[in-house]
Amino acid sequence: MGEKSERELVALLERVFGRARRPVLVGIGDDAAVLEVEGRRFVWTVDTSVENVHFRTGWLSLEDVGWRSFHAAVSDVAAMGGIPLAVLSNLIVPRSMGPKAVRALAKGQALAARSLRCPVVGGNLSRGGELSVTTTVLGRVDQPLLRSGARPGDELWLVGDVGLARAGLLWLSREEARASRRGGSTGRAVARCLEAWRRPRALVREGRALRGRARAAIDISDGLSTDAAHLAKASGVRVVIQEPRLRAALCRELEKVAPLLDCDPLELALAGGEDYALLAAGSGRVRPRGARRIGRVEKGRGVFLESDGAKRRIAADGFEHFGTENGRKG
Amino acid sequence: MGEKSERELVALLERVFGRARRPVLVGIGDDAAVLEVEGRRFVWTVDTSVENVHFRTGWLSLEDVGWRSFHAAVSDVAAMGGIPLAVLSNLIVPRSMGPKAVRALAKGQALAARSLRCPVVGGNLSRGGELSVTTTVLGRVDQPLLRSGARPGDELWLVGDVGLARAGLLWLSREEARASRRGGSTGRAVARCLEAWRRPRALVREGRALRGRARAAIDISDGLSTDAAHLAKASGVRVVIQEPRLRAALCRELEKVAPLLDCDPLELALAGGEDYALLAAGSGRVRPRGARRIGRVEKGRGVFLESDGAKRRIAADGFEHFGTENGRKG
Repeated sequence: MGEKSERELVALLERVFGRARRPVLVGIGDDAAVLEVEGRRFVWTVDTSVENVHFRTGWLSLEDVGWRSFHAAVSDVAAMGGIPLAVLSNLIVPRSMGPKAVRALAKGQALAARSLRCPVVGGNLSRGGELSVTTTVLGRVDQPLLRSGARPGDELWLVGDVGLARAGLLWLSREEARASRRGGSTGRAVARCLEAWRRPRALVREGRALRGRARAAIDISDGLSTDAAHLAKASGVRVVIQEPRLRAALCRELEKVAPLLDCDPLELALAGGEDYALLAAGSGRVRPRGARRIGRVEKGRGVFLESDGAKRRIAADGFEHFGTENGRKG
Repeated sequence: MGEKSERELVALLERVFGRARRPVLVGIGDDAAVLEVEGRRFVWTVDTSVENVHFRTGWLSLEDVGWRSFHAAVSDVAAMGGIPLAVLSNLIVPRSMGPKAVRALAKGQALAARSLRCPVVGGNLSRGGELSVTTTVLGRVDQPLLRSGARPGDELWLVGDVGLARAGLLWLSREEARASRRGGSTGRAVARCLEAWRRPRALVREGRALRGRARAAIDISDGLSTDAAHLAKASGVRVVIQEPRLRAALCRELEKVAPLLDCDPLELALAGGEDYALLAAGSGRVRPRGARRIGRVEKGRGVFLESDGAKRRIAADGFEHFGTENGRKG
């Protein structure tokens, strides 16, 4: 869907639904909703993968579809510092899809559930014209990490790898690349990128480690520069990504694969989202292990890339999300 | 979807996901999942309406689609004696659908949210080939009413009206009926049936009134005889519907419209589901106001209709649902 029409529809839904009061602590506009029920806080989110919008079954197995839709949904809970408790799975299944295919999809979900210790406790199955997997996650949280707490003077932290999934997707979308067989370290680097796209991992433990340290956090689902813009807008600040620091944070496999795709690894990193890394901001004094400093927070607006002392704007203010993710394209 | 293939797929999913342990009190197989978190119990359910499977936009407005998908989802919480707290709305929207249409759909959801005091606190919007509305409801519950508690000797109770929505849907599906304009009391009866299908109401207050009185309950979404079979199977009992009692419980509008559709009102009642009435079983000593006795619970299996002293089987054992509803057809 076009970014613009998507923004308009989401803004429209926000107006129609309005701001809810009790039991809502955090409603439309963050990674997930936060509810407070009898003194307990819960984080709650829904995410959908639609065939030919978010994935193509030619490029990944149905087991991959199940795994990745599950981890993508849980990633919103991870970004808030929450613990996923349980999942409801809603499948719309085309008539052409038989039991074997449904089993493969569910197996991917079940493996993901085990990997995250977060069981599928129910759901719904309907026939329809196209395959879609909608995953709802309920999690427990004490002090939710929001997008809105970053302050000028904070460091910008990257937790996890970014750009690999994008490289994997680009590899699959280019027929020549797909057709080529590569061995050795290049082949392993390509395999890592494909794995990153097909089998991402929600960084639940890493999100927990940000609690009490990060002042703001978001999961990188739409792309580093876009999600940085969401954080900047929600916090009312400017985010400056420092090119040398970001380059230093990229993994070797990305540097190996990018030239084969005629890309700069930096661009893959800035556009990449579906690795489900975390972006956070906080004081340098409390930076957690595993969080790599890739920039800083300043007064102002928007997202800037700083290279050789010069800054250029790379993203405008992010729009507020209707809940979690909106029409990401896979 | 064919009943049989649906059963097979649902059974398959149950096997793949297995029985979850903590925090699950009730998992796959009842109206909704029940979770226990730090001593608090929550009821949690998801339901989907897919265009051309569950509804046709020629037969109801998009505002109706929003309203009805919301109440249908909350109905599962009502059947458990729960209080709905909040909803996540997941929309898959075809490219042909513009802002005006999305607004109408969301308005129906927002009206339903207000009618149930259950706000939409987040969600997701994706493009796709066909319209679908997936509604996830979180509710609070203390002693959940399950499908499984009915005992021989219990009365069978109907709460709310049944058959009207089915009559409304049949009316819309018959072109001649649709084309005819009827005034007076017949016109009003038809209008009531159409309203029942387009704007059902989740019986939350009535479900609450069953707590401490009913031993088992289910919402009638698939049809009275089918849902009675679900209750019979889950409870390990036979359900006997007494024809004279059921006839006496039917409302006048159904009796007025049924002949115009060449139907027996009893058949509309037995097949009717989308009114979202409640079916419950309990001791006659504690029957709540508003619950009409339509039969009894016996030892055995299946669902029987008793007329003039003779019993005939009208439904086999219901299959266990994968959570809540499965591929209902609108």
